Amino acid sequence: MTLPVNLLMFGEAPDWLAFVKSAVVCFVVGLTALLLAGRKKHALRQRQMFMLTVSAWVVIPLFSSLPLLLSDMKLTVTDAFFESISGVTTTGSTVLSGLDGLPDDILLWRSLMQWMGGIGIIGMAVAILPFLRIGGMRLFATESSEWNEKVVPRTNSLARSLVGIYLGLTFSCILTYWLLGMDLFGALNHALTTVSTGGYSTSDSSMGQFDSPLILIASTVFMAIGAMPFFLFVRFIHGQRQPLFRDQQVHFFLGLLLVIALMLTVYRVLNESANPFDAFVHALFNVTSVVTTTGYASSDYSLWGPFAVVVFLFITFVGGCSGSTSGGMKIFRFQLSMLLLREQVRRLLHPHAVFARHYNGKVIGDDIVASSVAFSFIFLATLAFVTAILGALGLDLITSLSGAATALTNVGPGLGDIIGPAGNFQPLPDAAKWVLMGTMVLGRLELLSVLVMLSPDFWRS
Amino acid sequence: MTLPVNLLMFGEAPDWLAFVKSAVVCFVVGLTALLLAGRKKHALRQRQMFMLTVSAWVVIPLFSSLPLLLSDMKLTVTDAFFESISGVTTTGSTVLSGLDGLPDDILLWRSLMQWMGGIGIIGMAVAILPFLRIGGMRLFATESSEWNEKVVPRTNSLARSLVGIYLGLTFSCILTYWLLGMDLFGALNHALTTVSTGGYSTSDSSMGQFDSPLILIASTVFMAIGAMPFFLFVRFIHGQRQPLFRDQQVHFFLGLLLVIALMLTVYRVLNESANPFDAFVHALFNVTSVVTTTGYASSDYSLWGPFAVVVFLFITFVGGCSGSTSGGMKIFRFQLSMLLLREQVRRLLHPHAVFARHYNGKVIGDDIVASSVAFSFIFLATLAFVTAILGALGLDLITSLSGAATALTNVGPGLGDIIGPAGNFQPLPDAAKWVLMGTMVLGRLELLSVLVMLSPDFWRS
Repeated sequence: MTLPVNLLMFGEAPDWLAFVKSAVVCFVVGLTALLLAGRKKHALRQRQMFMLTVSAWVVIPLFSSLPLLLSDMKLTVTDAFFESISGVTTTGSTVLSGLDGLPDDILLWRSLMQWMGGIGIIGMAVAILPFLRIGGMRLFATESSEWNEKVVPRTNSLARSLVGIYLGLTFSCILTYWLLGMDLFGALNHALTTVSTGGYSTSDSSMGQFDSPLILIASTVFMAIGAMPFFLFVRFIHGQRQPLFRDQQVHFFLGLLLVIALMLTVYRVLNESANPFDAFVHALFNVTSVVTTTGYASSDYSLWGPFAVVVFLFITFVGGCSGSTSGGMKIFRFQLSMLLLREQVRRLLHPHAVFARHYNGKVIGDDIVASSVAFSFIFLATLAFVTAILGALGLDLITSLSGAATALTNVGPGLGDIIGPAGNFQPLPDAAKWVLMGTMVLGRLELLSVLVMLSPDFWRS
Repeated sequence: MTLPVNLLMFGEAPDWLAFVKSAVVCFVVGLTALLLAGRKKHALRQRQMFMLTVSAWVVIPLFSSLPLLLSDMKLTVTDAFFESISGVTTTGSTVLSGLDGLPDDILLWRSLMQWMGGIGIIGMAVAILPFLRIGGMRLFATESSEWNEKVVPRTNSLARSLVGIYLGLTFSCILTYWLLGMDLFGALNHALTTVSTGGYSTSDSSMGQFDSPLILIASTVFMAIGAMPFFLFVRFIHGQRQPLFRDQQVHFFLGLLLVIALMLTVYRVLNESANPFDAFVHALFNVTSVVTTTGYASSDYSLWGPFAVVVFLFITFVGGCSGSTSGGMKIFRFQLSMLLLREQVRRLLHPHAVFARHYNGKVIGDDIVASSVAFSFIFLATLAFVTAILGALGLDLITSLSGAATALTNVGPGLGDIIGPAGNFQPLPDAAKWVLMGTMVLGRLELLSVLVMLSPDFWRS
């Protein structure tokens, strides 16, 4: 919170007092909590880990909304909290319009929230979720535990590597954007929200403001990197290069981006005689933006025709790779479902044969598939439930469905006239905003960790 | 095909010649095939069973479209085939408008196609699919035990019971409709398409034409019966009454209808101060119509507000019980997914405990859950794929999505201005109609049986 205050040096921080006040509040509350807790060391048991994880994604946005509330923007509590929840969960849906005219300190704070949220979710995905056996994530627990014994002995060291990689990527992205023509402030903001696959921008026209194919291509690359499994990067910098290049999840992810972008390119070239190069750059950028759950837009892709609208609705669900900053259902869950499906077809033909499932060279047990599938089920059930609530609040079908989807997957923009890439979430009723906030947190927490807390078993001693 | 000719007795069969010609074509083709095949007895192996099942749902509609093509309506080949595929698969989507003015013989033929399709799908679900281990259907295979020589006489007697029950239900429905005020021809037609959960009507305003709460209630009951597991009726008439009343699938199905109808009633009473009784009757009727995949409408429910639209989109997927005339994903698959989910939540808390899944008092193995889940996956993947194709053919998002859903689940009407309950499928481009026809057949075949035929393994000797 003290970082945006530094903009005073350039005379760009009209809300500096709001940030100082917020920082003081955080300091006082934090200190009080620390004093109350005393110096006892607590070993975290499973129940506490669940609760800590869930509450972090509510408490941090709560305090992050303070500068927005105290600033000159005169936001309602709902709007300030919406903006900070959307920020910290790296969703990127915004209730603010006229971004181009906002003070720099507020813009920087929005970007910082997403950047912090990005590293938070990587930490959660790599260090916590696999041990909680959530949604098939244990698939990756073996990965980091094997790797713990051999290469890096302690979790602390893993955390240091992750932060180092995250910082390195952020600085590379700032530099790249700056070299390609953004001013330094723009490069800083967009790098913070690119690497975190967050999607907040400094302009209502998002990345469309730069009108530069090179910037779009660079942004595509960094969004894709932000949506890849970060533990593979850790192994990479420790000299194990093969796992990154041979990873089945990464292959499928990159292949998917390319195939869908090509489909949209062909469609636009045939349909509106678009320039093939331009069409491809914009298709790849916007598809990558949605699949990585970033949520930038380079143009209003909902005007590309009905096929594009359908495609953008469905790729909202996909999400990036597990262990990245991205949200959504995640590539590996689709791959596990496909493995299951192939196995079922074979079993129809050879009822008595025994099949072993392989993923990334390892045998995958029934428990991991079951937990991945259970995640998909609760994901789709939640989507239906949230869509119905939004409908009951008066939103039309496309706004309800795409709004629920974009919040649950932490993408950002929805579809339709109101919340589409050319609109924002301001016109929605307050109740709908609260529903969407809850949905963003649910999505960020991979759903099951919340569901566990709703189970009576959880609260029994 | 000779049945509608009998309407000549009442002077109501202007197309009698079309039916006679079609019947002659069928007779000649059938006789030729019979003569070519000779008297050899063929034992059906698994591959032939797959092929026979799949081809039946293409060949029968092909011949069924003949009377429509040869009639005075001057339908295009596409429209005639669409109407017969939609009929035989008991979907109920129509390309015809001005139903009220159509000759009686054509109306009766449409109803007959659905009625034949209805008994066909029950036979397939009870006698064939369980042995093919498709989509978790083996859950119901235990009922008629293993596939061996003993089964054949048992299957014959089972088939006789099923046909008997189907006929009994149809006659009860005709009688009920007639007693409640329909004329005999209307009662006959609507009974044929109610019990088969088909949904073709004799009027553009569907069941709305009668404006009678009693008829709606009667129709609700018979649609619900048509969507219940028919093998439970067989046990019922053989004196085993408990299984029907204790069946978990039936309980959940009836509970779901009631809960959703109540939600819609409350919504409409609050929102438009609707009369509670009227609102409930119409809500229960239309919800039952969609969940049972019948597709009647008593009024244009898409005008009930955005919540209703969202609800009708989602309940399109649910479908009735397994082993009935209904389509969709089927109730038991949702129940198995919920079992899996509950088990996963427990496992998060008690990682080393062993859980046994129970459904209808039986222990459910991993293989059945896996095959049910695989079905859901291929179902949703097909939905996305068909929606994208329809979008590429120029249909808007709501028409594409609801059109794909309504065809895949064999419901009938979609949502939106074109294919909603107040519209029909006539304005769609021919290509979209062919895509929808393929989708209806896929849905009727529970998808996997078609997928199996696409697998290279299937064609190896």
